[in-house]
Amino acid sequence: MCGIFGIFGHPEAANMTYLGLYALQHRGQEGAGIVSSDGRNLYSHKDTGLVADIFTADVIERLPGFAAIGHVRYSTTGESLIQNVQPIMVNYARGGMAVAHNGNLVNAATVRERLERRGSIFQSDTDTEIIVHLIARSRASSLVDRIVEALREVRGAFSLVFLTETRMVGVRDPYGFRPLILGYLKGAHILASETCALDLIGAEFVRELEPGELVLIDREGIRSFKPFEEVPHTPCIFEFIYFARPDSFIFGRNVYEVRKDLGRSLAEEHPADADMVIPVPDSGVPAAIGYSQTLGLSYEMGLIRSHYVGRTFIEPKQSIRHFGVKLKLNPVKDLLKGKRIVVVDDSIVRGTTSRKIVSMLKRGGAREVHMRIASPPTCYPCFYGIDTPTRCELIASSHSIDEIARYLGTDSLGYLSIEGLMDAVGEGTYCKACFDGSYPVPFERSQEGDQMALFR
Amino acid sequence: MCGIFGIFGHPEAANMTYLGLYALQHRGQEGAGIVSSDGRNLYSHKDTGLVADIFTADVIERLPGFAAIGHVRYSTTGESLIQNVQPIMVNYARGGMAVAHNGNLVNAATVRERLERRGSIFQSDTDTEIIVHLIARSRASSLVDRIVEALREVRGAFSLVFLTETRMVGVRDPYGFRPLILGYLKGAHILASETCALDLIGAEFVRELEPGELVLIDREGIRSFKPFEEVPHTPCIFEFIYFARPDSFIFGRNVYEVRKDLGRSLAEEHPADADMVIPVPDSGVPAAIGYSQTLGLSYEMGLIRSHYVGRTFIEPKQSIRHFGVKLKLNPVKDLLKGKRIVVVDDSIVRGTTSRKIVSMLKRGGAREVHMRIASPPTCYPCFYGIDTPTRCELIASSHSIDEIARYLGTDSLGYLSIEGLMDAVGEGTYCKACFDGSYPVPFERSQEGDQMALFR
Amino acid sequence: MCGIFGIFGHPEAANMTYLGLYALQHRGQEGAGIVSSDGRNLYSHKDTGLVADIFTADVIERLPGFAAIGHVRYSTTGESLIQNVQPIMVNYARGGMAVAHNGNLVNAATVRERLERRGSIFQSDTDTEIIVHLIARSRASSLVDRIVEALREVRGAFSLVFLTETRMVGVRDPYGFRPLILGYLKGAHILASETCALDLIGAEFVRELEPGELVLIDREGIRSFKPFEEVPHTPCIFEFIYFARPDSFIFGRNVYEVRKDLGRSLAEEHPADADMVIPVPDSGVPAAIGYSQTLGLSYEMGLIRSHYVGRTFIEPKQSIRHFGVKLKLNPVKDLLKGKRIVVVDDSIVRGTTSRKIVSMLKRGGAREVHMRIASPPTCYPCFYGIDTPTRCELIASSHSIDEIARYLGTDSLGYLSIEGLMDAVGEGTYCKACFDGSYPVPFERSQEGDQMALFR
Amino acid sequence: MCGIFGIFGHPEAANMTYLGLYALQHRGQEGAGIVSSDGRNLYSHKDTGLVADIFTADVIERLPGFAAIGHVRYSTTGESLIQNVQPIMVNYARGGMAVAHNGNLVNAATVRERLERRGSIFQSDTDTEIIVHLIARSRASSLVDRIVEALREVRGAFSLVFLTETRMVGVRDPYGFRPLILGYLKGAHILASETCALDLIGAEFVRELEPGELVLIDREGIRSFKPFEEVPHTPCIFEFIYFARPDSFIFGRNVYEVRKDLGRSLAEEHPADADMVIPVPDSGVPAAIGYSQTLGLSYEMGLIRSHYVGRTFIEPKQSIRHFGVKLKLNPVKDLLKGKRIVVVDDSIVRGTTSRKIVSMLKRGGAREVHMRIASPPTCYPCFYGIDTPTRCELIASSHSIDEIARYLGTDSLGYLSIEGLMDAVGEGTYCKACFDGSYPVPFERSQEGDQMALFR
Repeated sequence: MCGIFGIFGHPEAANMTYLGLYALQHRGQEGAGIVSSDGRNLYSHKDTGLVADIFTADVIERLPGFAAIGHVRYSTTGESLIQNVQPIMVNYARGGMAVAHNGNLVNAATVRERLERRGSIFQSDTDTEIIVHLIARSRASSLVDRIVEALREVRGAFSLVFLTETRMVGVRDPYGFRPLILGYLKGAHILASETCALDLIGAEFVRELEPGELVLIDREGIRSFKPFEEVPHTPCIFEFIYFARPDSFIFGRNVYEVRKDLGRSLAEEHPADADMVIPVPDSGVPAAIGYSQTLGLSYEMGLIRSHYVGRTFIEPKQSIRHFGVKLKLNPVKDLLKGKRIVVVDDSIVRGTTSRKIVSMLKRGGAREVHMRIASPPTCYPCFYGIDTPTRCELIASSHSIDEIARYLGTDSLGYLSIEGLMDAVGEGTYCKACFDGSYPVPFERSQEGDQMALFR
Repeated sequence: MCGIFGIFGHPEAANMTYLGLYALQHRGQEGAGIVSSDGRNLYSHKDTGLVADIFTADVIERLPGFAAIGHVRYSTTGESLIQNVQPIMVNYARGGMAVAHNGNLVNAATVRERLERRGSIFQSDTDTEIIVHLIARSRASSLVDRIVEALREVRGAFSLVFLTETRMVGVRDPYGFRPLILGYLKGAHILASETCALDLIGAEFVRELEPGELVLIDREGIRSFKPFEEVPHTPCIFEFIYFARPDSFIFGRNVYEVRKDLGRSLAEEHPADADMVIPVPDSGVPAAIGYSQTLGLSYEMGLIRSHYVGRTFIEPKQSIRHFGVKLKLNPVKDLLKGKRIVVVDDSIVRGTTSRKIVSMLKRGGAREVHMRIASPPTCYPCFYGIDTPTRCELIASSHSIDEIARYLGTDSLGYLSIEGLMDAVGEGTYCKACFDGSYPVPFERSQEGDQMALFR
Repeated sequence: MCGIFGIFGHPEAANMTYLGLYALQHRGQEGAGIVSSDGRNLYSHKDTGLVADIFTADVIERLPGFAAIGHVRYSTTGESLIQNVQPIMVNYARGGMAVAHNGNLVNAATVRERLERRGSIFQSDTDTEIIVHLIARSRASSLVDRIVEALREVRGAFSLVFLTETRMVGVRDPYGFRPLILGYLKGAHILASETCALDLIGAEFVRELEPGELVLIDREGIRSFKPFEEVPHTPCIFEFIYFARPDSFIFGRNVYEVRKDLGRSLAEEHPADADMVIPVPDSGVPAAIGYSQTLGLSYEMGLIRSHYVGRTFIEPKQSIRHFGVKLKLNPVKDLLKGKRIVVVDDSIVRGTTSRKIVSMLKRGGAREVHMRIASPPTCYPCFYGIDTPTRCELIASSHSIDEIARYLGTDSLGYLSIEGLMDAVGEGTYCKACFDGSYPVPFERSQEGDQMALFR
Repeated sequence: MCGIFGIFGHPEAANMTYLGLYALQHRGQEGAGIVSSDGRNLYSHKDTGLVADIFTADVIERLPGFAAIGHVRYSTTGESLIQNVQPIMVNYARGGMAVAHNGNLVNAATVRERLERRGSIFQSDTDTEIIVHLIARSRASSLVDRIVEALREVRGAFSLVFLTETRMVGVRDPYGFRPLILGYLKGAHILASETCALDLIGAEFVRELEPGELVLIDREGIRSFKPFEEVPHTPCIFEFIYFARPDSFIFGRNVYEVRKDLGRSLAEEHPADADMVIPVPDSGVPAAIGYSQTLGLSYEMGLIRSHYVGRTFIEPKQSIRHFGVKLKLNPVKDLLKGKRIVVVDDSIVRGTTSRKIVSMLKRGGAREVHMRIASPPTCYPCFYGIDTPTRCELIASSHSIDEIARYLGTDSLGYLSIEGLMDAVGEGTYCKACFDGSYPVPFERSQEGDQMALFR
C-alpha cells in the first residue's frame, strides 16, 4: 500500500503536496517524498519516516514551483531503505521525469531481466523503476505515447502520477485496482489516492479517474485519454474493508458507509446474544456500529487506543505480556466486567493480534468474547500491492473457522461470507482474490515463491 | 496538567517508568524526564518533546538502578523551556533528591519571595522548586518529617513523588485535587497519576492514595502517614470530564462510565430531535454514546480524527479555512448529508474550535447541528493545575447560552447543569470551581492578575 | 577533487575504509559513502557532510563483509546533493556493482546524450554514472572486459575503484592524471588516492598503479592489466602544489619535499630583503620553509590558523571586516610589528583571499608585505577534476603581475616560473594546463561554456 | 581550563559572544553556553559540544539584547553533563543573574557543606554554583558589594563574568591565576579570557584586568574596584606554555614570543647534534622555531596534523598500533629517513603520547630521535583550574629524566630548567606549582585525594 498525490498550477505546490501526503499518511508510514517543478527544473526531497518529520519549512522552501507530486510508502519488503522511497526522479533523453506509484506489477521480474539484458541499470528494488526505464527506451515522440507504450509492457496494479518540468500525468491501470481521484482548487488540478487529501487542503472533488484512464495536465488544462484495451474492472475490495480512510469516497461509495453495511451484513449472518458490541479501534469502528444497530445491542468503546504509537518502543528485558498490543490498546475493565462482549474487527491476517485482544478482554473481566470479522477469511496472498503475508502465514488458508476460534480463545467466531460482502458493497465487480483466490491478472509463477521467501 | 510516575524495587526501573510515562502522555506533551537511583547515585535525563522521542534505548541504559520517578509536563505558561521540565533533581545537605509534581500551589509567589529574601536561588519558574527549597531548609531529622514540614508551608494542589538514593515518597494534598494511585508488580511498589500506567506494564492496581496521605517506600516496604490536618476532600471534577483517560480508574470510579453517565444526564436535560449523534473525537466519545443510548438515537463516527497530529504543521501562505481543526478532524460528508446532527463534546473553553466544527459539519452537508456539552459552562479559571485561559477568554464567563449558540452557529446548544453533573458523578464532594467559582483553597489576589497576564 | 579507497580481503573492510576516507578527507568535505560486500550482497551508506559525522558505529555495523570501497566528494558544482555522493551502486544484468571515481571526463556530455538517446536514465549529475551505463551495456563476458570496453569510450581523467559481490577493480586512466596507489595489510589488498590512507590503518605501501593500468583483485589474488593504448603520461602537477597531503607519496615523490623544492626555486627566482618569512597555513608551510632556508631568513608562524573551521558561521548584521578569513587566520601582531614580511602561499585563484591576508598583515603592523607564490600564475581552468573557477574569474588570466600586486596591496609579488616549477618537481612530464593552457586531452567545445555557466 | 567572554552595549551581543567563544574554543570543547539580556529578562542557551554546532542562527535569534556573557567548558571531571555547562543562570531576591567562571576554588567542599547545612540546594557539581549561593545570601545592598562579600569567602583561582538584567561585572582573583582582558568595540565594553577573541570581532584591546580588580559595566560606563587585600601575583605560567593561543597577548606578553623564547632557552640548555628540528604540532611549533633558530638547525614540519579530529572514532576490533595518535599525526617518512631528529613539544604529562610519537618517528625511518621539552618536568597536580592528572599519573613525579627517556625510547631527552623557564618568560612572578610544588594558595587536604579518585 502506498499513497500518491499530485498538484499542477498552484503557487505553493510543494506545501499542498505535503499536506496531501499528511492526509494520506495511513497508506504508508515508512517514508515519503516530494518532487516539485518550477517549469525549468525538478526539485526532490525524500526520506524514511513520517511526513511531518521529513518536511520542515526549510525543506518545503527548497521545493519551489507550481507543480509537485508526492508519495507515502508502506514498505512491502520489511526494509525501509532510502533508495526505495519514491517519487523516483531521473534524467533521460527528454529531460527530467519523476514518478510516484501505488500498486504492484506482476511481471516485474521478467521485464526487469529483459531490460538488464539490454544494459539497463537499477538503483532500487522497486518495480516502479522498471516503468521509468520503459519510458526512457520508448521512441514515441510525445510524453503520453511514451508512457502508454511503457505501461502496455507491464501487467498488474498501478495508479501513477508523473511529473516533468512542464507536465503532470495521472494513470489508473485498466483493472482499476487502486483508487485515483481528481480534484480542483483555484485553477490547480489535483490527483490523489483518496478524497480525504482534497478535504484537508479545501479542494473540490471532481471525479474518480476511470480504470484505464490517463489524464495529461499542463498549462493548457487537462486532457483525458483511454489508451488501454478494455478489461473487466476489478477494484480492490480491501480498500473498502481496511485501507482507505472512512471519510474518503472511492470506487463510487463512501468508505464509512460501506463498512457500516459490512457490519449490518455480518449481524444478519452472525448475530450474537451479548451485552455489548465493541470495535477493535479504529478500523473496526464503523462495522461495529453497523453490527450493533442491526441487532439493537449497545455499542461501547471497550478498548481505548493510544494516540502516540508509531515509534519503536523499548521493551524491558523482563518482557511484558502482550506488550505490542498493549502499547496500542487497553481495555476499559469496569465496563467489561462480567459482560458478554461482541468484538468486531475488519479482518484477521495471522491471528496473533486477535488472539492477544481476546486474551486482554478476558483478563479484563469479560465473561464471554464473541469475535465477528467484517470480511471473509483471508486465505490468499495479494499480488497487487497489499502487503499480506505468504499463504502459509495466513491463518485462514490452512485452518477451519473452528480451529481459528480455538486458537483465538473466543467463545464464538463469525466471518462475513463472500456473498454477504458483495451484498454490502453493492453493485460493481471487485478483485476479491484474497478471499477466493481468483486473481484477475495472472502473476508469474516465481512470484508466489518470492512472496514466500520474502516473509520467511 | 501533568502526569507523574514512580517505581521502587524493580531491576529495570527506568524502563518501566518510561512506559508508565508513555501511558500518561495524554497528561502532558511538552516535555518529560526520568530520574533513577541505583542506591548510591541519582541519574537524570529530561528534554522537551514526546516520551517516545526523548527516551531511546541508549538513554534508558544511562539511567540504571532499582528505583525511578518520572514526569510528563503540560506547559501552563506557553513556554516549553528545558529548565522547567521535571523531575527537578538537586543536591542538598542530606544527599540527592528528585521530585515530580502534578498540581499547582496557590501561595507560590509569597513563599518564593520569602525564600529569596533568605538567600535562595531559583533555576526554574516552577512552583515545585519552592518545595525542594523548603525541604532543604528543614532541620527535621527524617526525610518524611522534612517533606511534611515543607508541605505544611504551601497551599494548593499537589500530587508528588520524591526520590532519594534509597527512598521513594508519594504524597497527595489534603484536598485530594489530583489523583495518585498505588500499584504493585513483582515486589516493586508503583505510584502513578492514573491506573492506565499500571495496565501497560502489567502491574496490579492496589488502591488510590487518600487525600492527605503520604507513603514512604524503601527496602523495608511501604509505610503510610496522614500528617496533615483533615480538610474537606475536593478532587478535581475536570479529571472525570476531560483529563483522565477513559480506561483509568480514579476518585473511586471508572472514567469511561462517568462520562457515559454525563451523556445520559445531558440527554435527559437536553434531548434533541435528530437523525444521529456524533462525538467530537476522542474526548466526546463516551458521553455521545451515553447520550445516544438514552434517547435511542443512532450513534455515528461523523468526524474522523487523524492519528498523526502532535507536531507543528507548515501552513501555506494562502491559508486554508479551519486549517488547525482540519489537521485533526474531517467530516464523513456522505453520512451527514441532509441529516439533523447532535454533536457531543466534553466542554467549551474559548469556543473557537467548537465554532469551526459546527461550520465544518454544516459545510459537510448537515441540515441541522445541535451541540450538546457534557459539562456546565466553564466560567471560572482554575488555580489548581489546569491550564484554563483567563476569565475574559472563557466564552461562558461573559456570554449567555443563547449568545454562545449564535456565535457557534448551532441550531441549538445545551450544557449539562451543575445538578446534572453532580448526579452523574455520584456521591462525593468535588472541586467544581471552574463551573461555580467556589474555590476550596483561597488563592493569592495577585494570581488572578498573573493568570490574566499569562494569556494576554 | 575527490578521494577514493578500496580494500579487499579484510574482516573489517568497512571500518578500514572509513578510516581510509578520514585520512583522505582533505580531498573532499562535501559528502562521503561506503559500499561493502559480504560475497553475496552489496551494502551502501552515503550522506553529505564529514566522514566522522556520517559513519557511526551503528552505520559501520550495517556494512558487513570482507571488501569495501569508499569515496569522499568535493562538490564541483556548488551543490552538495545527496544523489551526487558516491560510490554509485546499481544492479544490472550481472548482479550488483559499485564505483567510486576521482577525476573528470571531458566527453561526458556527448556520451551521456548518446546513452540517453538509446534509453538510459540518469539519477545524478555525475559523469561517473555514464561509466556504469557503458559497463551495463557491454556484451563482453568478463568484468574486466566490460570495464575496459566502457572506459575506451570515455576520455579524460579517471582513477576508479569498482566493487562487485566478489571482486574489486582499480583503474588509472592512460594519462595518469590522478594518483592511485596500492597497499597491503595482512592479506588484504588496498587501493587509495594517497599513501596517507595506508599510514593511518598501518598498511604497507606496495607501489603506485601505472597510468593505464587496471588491477583485478579477488579471492585468488591480484592481477594486473594494461588494456589501453599507450599515451604520454601527464599526472596533474597541482596535486603536488596544493591537493595532496604533504605526508603522502605520489607520482614518485614525497609531496612535502616537492613543496619545499618549490619554495627553494621561488627563493632563487624571487628573493626578498625581509625580516622574516611566514606561510599562509597550512598549504604554504613547506614552500615557506624551503624559501626561508634558501635565503637564510627567519621562518615564523605569523598567521595562526583555527582548528574549528569547516562549518557555516553566523555573521552579525554589522558585518565584520574580512570575516571569512578571520575565522580561519589571525596574525601574531607583536611578531609582525614594524617588520618586513615575506608571505608564501601555494597559489592564487581569484585573489580575494590573498588580498584580505595582505590587508590583515598590514593592519597587524607589518611594515612591508612581500607575497611569494610557489606556482606560476593560474591562467586556465581545469577540465580534469579540479574545481577551478572559469577563466574570467582567475585573476591571472586577465591581469599582469603588476596589476595583481596592486590589487593585493603587496609591496612586491613574485610567482614561480613554469621553468622553476618543472625544475623543482624534477624529471617526468605533467599536466600543467592550468598554467600554460596546453591541455593533454582535448575537451568538448561546449565544456568551457558549461564551466562558465557553472560558476556564474 | 575554560574560556569566558562578555560584552555590554552591543546591539548583537549574543552573536558577538558566539564569535568570541569560537575564538576561545581551544580553552574548552566539552560544552558552551550564552546568557543574554535585553534589560528586562535574561535568555539562556547551553549545550554540550562545539560552539559552531550549539549556536545556530535560530538559537542566536532567541538570545536578544544588548549584553551577553558566554563560556566554553573543558570538562575537568571526565563527564560532560549538560547541567555542568555554564553560564549558570538563576533567579534570586534581586532578580536574575548569570555567571561564567574560569578557574577552580580550593575551598569549594568546605563552603558547599556549610551552605548545604543552611539549606542550600545544588543542581550541578561546579564550584561556580557556590559563588552564586553566597551572592544570593549576602545582605549587602549593591551588586558589587554582594559579589565582593561572596568572593571573600572563597579561595582559589577565578576569572569571572557576571550578568544581570542591567549590569555586567568582571573580576579576576587577587593572585591573578587566570587571564581576563578588557576590550572595546563601538561603544561596547568587552571582557574575554584572551585577546584573540577581540581580534575576531574586530574589537580593540584596552588592557588586562589587574589581579584583584573588579569592573562594573552598565549604561553609565565602566568603573573599576580593587576590593581585595593585596597578595603576591601568581598568574599561571602554563597559560604561556600550553593553554593560550599563540596570537594572544596575556600577562603582559605575546604568547608566541614567549614560546619562541622558551625554545631558545631550551636550545641553550640542551643543544643537539641533529639534521633537523621538528615540532609536535601545533603546541610545539613556536618553541621548535626558537630552538632551531638558536642552533642554526633546519626547521621542518616532519609530523602532519589532521584538521578533522575532535570527534570519537570507531577503532576496528583488530586494533591499530598507536591509533589515537595516528588520527592526529602522521610522519613525513621521506623527510625523516636516515635523519637525526630533534622533536620539540611543550610538555609531557603521562608520557604515553610522547612515547607513541617517538615510536612513530623511528618506524618512519628516523635514525635518532632527540626529544626536547619547552618546560620543566611536570611533577605536581594543579588545583587552580588546569586538568592535570593526579601525581601518581604524572610520569615526572616518580621517574628520573633517564627513566623517562628510556620509557619514551628517545636517544636523548632534555627538559627546560625552572631557571631557563623564568628567564624566557622574563620579569614577573608566576604560579609554577606544577613544576616546583610550591602552591601559592593552600588547598584543602581532601582535595588531593579527590583528584586521585577522579582520575583512577
